[in-house]
Amino acid sequence: MSLDTAAVKPMERLSAALAQDMDQVNLLIRDRMASEHAPRIPEISAHLIEAGGKRLRPMLTLAAARMCGYEGPHHVHLAATVEFIHTATLLHDDVVDESNKRRGRPTANLLWDNKSSVLVGDYLFARSFQLMIETGSLRVLDILANASATIAEGEVLQLTAAQSLKTDEAIYLKIVRGKTAALFSAATEVGGVIAGAPEEHVTALFTYGDALGIAFQIVDDLLDYGGATADTGKNIGDDFRERKLTLPVIKAVAKADANERAFWVRVIEKGKQDEGDLEHALELLAKHDAMASARADAMEWVTKAKDALAPLPPSDLRDLLIDLADYVVSRIS
Amino acid sequence: MSLDTAAVKPMERLSAALAQDMDQVNLLIRDRMASEHAPRIPEISAHLIEAGGKRLRPMLTLAAARMCGYEGPHHVHLAATVEFIHTATLLHDDVVDESNKRRGRPTANLLWDNKSSVLVGDYLFARSFQLMIETGSLRVLDILANASATIAEGEVLQLTAAQSLKTDEAIYLKIVRGKTAALFSAATEVGGVIAGAPEEHVTALFTYGDALGIAFQIVDDLLDYGGATADTGKNIGDDFRERKLTLPVIKAVAKADANERAFWVRVIEKGKQDEGDLEHALELLAKHDAMASARADAMEWVTKAKDALAPLPPSDLRDLLIDLADYVVSRIS
Repeated sequence: MSLDTAAVKPMERLSAALAQDMDQVNLLIRDRMASEHAPRIPEISAHLIEAGGKRLRPMLTLAAARMCGYEGPHHVHLAATVEFIHTATLLHDDVVDESNKRRGRPTANLLWDNKSSVLVGDYLFARSFQLMIETGSLRVLDILANASATIAEGEVLQLTAAQSLKTDEAIYLKIVRGKTAALFSAATEVGGVIAGAPEEHVTALFTYGDALGIAFQIVDDLLDYGGATADTGKNIGDDFRERKLTLPVIKAVAKADANERAFWVRVIEKGKQDEGDLEHALELLAKHDAMASARADAMEWVTKAKDALAPLPPSDLRDLLIDLADYVVSRIS
Repeated sequence: MSLDTAAVKPMERLSAALAQDMDQVNLLIRDRMASEHAPRIPEISAHLIEAGGKRLRPMLTLAAARMCGYEGPHHVHLAATVEFIHTATLLHDDVVDESNKRRGRPTANLLWDNKSSVLVGDYLFARSFQLMIETGSLRVLDILANASATIAEGEVLQLTAAQSLKTDEAIYLKIVRGKTAALFSAATEVGGVIAGAPEEHVTALFTYGDALGIAFQIVDDLLDYGGATADTGKNIGDDFRERKLTLPVIKAVAKADANERAFWVRVIEKGKQDEGDLEHALELLAKHDAMASARADAMEWVTKAKDALAPLPPSDLRDLLIDLADYVVSRIS
């Protein structure tokens, strides 16, 4: 399937194909984010969960389970689990990044406070474990507990490494595997596991999720320095202002001469940013073909993701996941 | 056993009785708080875990399992799990309370930053789930996941309820069950469950942990308004300054006349505190016998805790847990 066809919103086609399952997931989410004693919990959870998030991660779980012929009820629990873990990490991320906007709306830490965001995140994280336990599968529990640890580790690594020019592409990949790809790959892997799929298929699903997650994050990093095909609603330069060393910058730093290096030290390591610095950064990215090179990396991960699905039997859902991978990079020019 | 005998440090006797098991727990904790990629994680975890915490909660798990004749290896995993959950909640609590001191040392949020405390807490929480999964017991997982949800719910409830004079003793009990007793009762219960103890004994252990945790928290609240038998190293009035409506104050508010009520509204609900207000609060607590009444409540919970152990076969560890309950209230005059 070509890029053009894939660009016809594969998210929406996936959503339509999994509509019945997703209705169940949404019911379960609403049920489990309730709290008998603390009404602030569902208030904050609903603010985030019902804000029109794309439900990408739970859809990956549902699609993986259905592709492997699953007919039981527990893919719904796992999809809700994955969404709860994702929401918990968003709540904590917004505290850590001191963000004030998420999905075009004010963040919970702004509308309520940091305290509530931390504690409601903890609550959703605990709820996610309750949900996954209901599947009764120790292997599934293991995968999701490992993913949770990897996510937190990736976030801590980002905290300490992101503002250091020593951060190279290998460290970047570790951070990205933690903060983004770990939940993507766990989401697809548990879908295969709950369906009792053969090991070869489970591995294929894991590899797809991992590569898709990495491509997704590289694209996100690219969008932050412009390079979008259409208006994405993102502010250009957020990562720059937060002094996050993302892939395009890492590539430009690797090719920097002494003057350019001094510039990056000042704006990223020392955080002394003046007017015109973002424009200069964009010039340096262009000079060293950093955007194009990062884009090529993203394309490579998309190819890996699509190739990974080859061992799985052909099906509409498999085709949709392939289109989804193409769609992820279609957002960048 | 009388209060006087119990006051001869039952924590130390328990520690001696469980020394070999506790060595294993400490080894496991050190092993699992490591992080291949993010050295800040063990730095912060060690700051808190090796700061001379009393290891009360993991000892409860070890004691419960041994009392029920457990000979396997998994009580060590569960004890480490419980300590990790406790440490994760401390890291997040200090962010939420904006604390700068814990166990006589500067808090992690002060030495590093709030971000690190949030994320390392998340990491330890995920690690705790990995540890409990290694036991292979779905029932144990269920108990600890439920406890984790109850803890977070109790903390959110405290956030919204603690500064409102509408908070009565029933709401206080819900908060305390969440923030303190849920982990105590889960710690003892899982000890019994992993040992395969009969249901009657598991219930007894749960009830002991629940009542002990409630007594422990009431005593903590009392110490915050003075009333210690000896120097506890606590600052008097922290809860007052943080406008936390704890049991002594709830009791004084219930008996307040119009003038007194206006005082509580000003200092707790509105948070307008002047010099001399803490002293006036202490006078009101004395006037209404609030400290004595809270102390009587704590004694009642201690009695419940001790009585709960009756169905368990007599043993040295059972006696030590009984002494421990007495010791908890021996800290208050």
